[in-house]
Amino acid sequence: METLQIPTREREEMIDITTEVQKLIRQNGWGDGGVLLYCPHTTGAITINEGADPDVKRDIVVNMRRLVPHQGDYRHAEGNSDAHLKVSMFGPSQMIIVESGDLKLGTWQRVFFCEFDGPRTRKLWVKWLSA
Amino acid sequence: METLQIPTREREEMIDITTEVQKLIRQNGWGDGGVLLYCPHTTGAITINEGADPDVKRDIVVNMRRLVPHQGDYRHAEGNSDAHLKVSMFGPSQMIIVESGDLKLGTWQRVFFCEFDGPRTRKLWVKWLSA
Amino acid sequence: METLQIPTREREEMIDITTEVQKLIRQNGWGDGGVLLYCPHTTGAITINEGADPDVKRDIVVNMRRLVPHQGDYRHAEGNSDAHLKVSMFGPSQMIIVESGDLKLGTWQRVFFCEFDGPRTRKLWVKWLSA
Repeated sequence: METLQIPTREREEMIDITTEVQKLIRQNGWGDGGVLLYCPHTTGAITINEGADPDVKRDIVVNMRRLVPHQGDYRHAEGNSDAHLKVSMFGPSQMIIVESGDLKLGTWQRVFFCEFDGPRTRKLWVKWLSA
Repeated sequence: METLQIPTREREEMIDITTEVQKLIRQNGWGDGGVLLYCPHTTGAITINEGADPDVKRDIVVNMRRLVPHQGDYRHAEGNSDAHLKVSMFGPSQMIIVESGDLKLGTWQRVFFCEFDGPRTRKLWVKWLSA
Repeated sequence: METLQIPTREREEMIDITTEVQKLIRQNGWGDGGVLLYCPHTTGAITINEGADPDVKRDIVVNMRRLVPHQGDYRHAEGNSDAHLKVSMFGPSQMIIVESGDLKLGTWQRVFFCEFDGPRTRKLWVKWLSA
C-alpha cells in the first residue's frame, strides 16, 4: 500500500489527484489490474467527474452544500455532520482500471479527493489489486 | 478489459444491463473473483437496485430530479451540472462478486447503467479481477 | 465467499459490523489484498463513517430521511421507494484494504451495514480479492 499526502485550503474542496496517482502507478511498476484509492478520513471522499471546466467542481460543491447544509438538525458536537453525510453519499473510495501501467479513465474524467471539513492535510491510501 | 455498448433513449434513464454482463463473463470464461463495471462518461453511473417492478426505476429517476434539478445555481456552460452531481452521488462503478462464472446478485438485484444527460450511445468497461 | 447474518431492529438503522468483518478475515487466514463487503438486499447498503460518537449515525439517518422522505411522489406499490433511492446513493458495497490480516481503516472509521426498510434479518457477503 502506498500513501499520498493531500493538502487542502478550504472547508469544502475537490482536488484533482489524477497526475499524482498516475505517477505512483508508474513508480511501482504496476501493470494490469485495478487500483483502489481509499480515503481514511471520515470527512473526505473520492470521486471521478469532469475535470476540464473548473465550474463543474464549483457546481458540485455548492449544490451539495444546498442539499446538506453546514447548519441543521444535527446533534454531533463537532459541528461537521454535514461533512460525514456527504462522505456516505460520495463514498470513501474508488476502484479504477489500470492497463499497461496506465490509469484507464474516460476522455473527460479526472479523479478528485473531496474534503468536506477542511482545510487539513489529508492522506490517500493507494492499493494495487492484480488482474 | 471488455467493452459493452449501451444505447440510451431519454435524458435520464436506468437501463438493466445484467444479462449482457452475465453473457460477457461466460464468453470470457471468468470463474471466481470480482468484476468491475466502470462507466467512462461523466454523466453516466452504475447502480444496483430492484429490477422486478419498473416503478422503482421511475421513482429513483423522478426523485433524483427533485433533489438535483436540471436548472439551478449552476455556472457550467454545458447545462448538465445536475447530471455530473448525480454521477458523484451514485458513483461511476460497481464491483460485483463472480463465482463459478455466475454474477452473484441478491434475489431482487439487477445492475443498471444510469444516464443522466442522454440520449447518447455509451460505453461500459468491464474488468476482471481474480480472487 | 463468506456470509454474515445481520439482524436489524428499526426501519432505518446503521449497524457497526467492523468487529465481525475483522474476525472473519482472521478466521479465513486472509493476508494481503482487499475485501469486498456486499449487501445482496435492495433496501440495504454499506458505508464507512465516524463510529466514535453515536450522534453521527443519528444525524446521517435523520438527514437522509429529510432528503428522501418515506412518503412522496412514489408509484412503487411496496411503499419503500425511499429505501431503494438511499441504497443507490450510499451504494451496495465497499472495498476495504487488508494488510497482514488487518482491515485497514482510518483512526475514526468504522464499517456500517445500513438498513433503510427494516427491521429484518439481513445477509452480508464478504469476498476476498488477493493483491
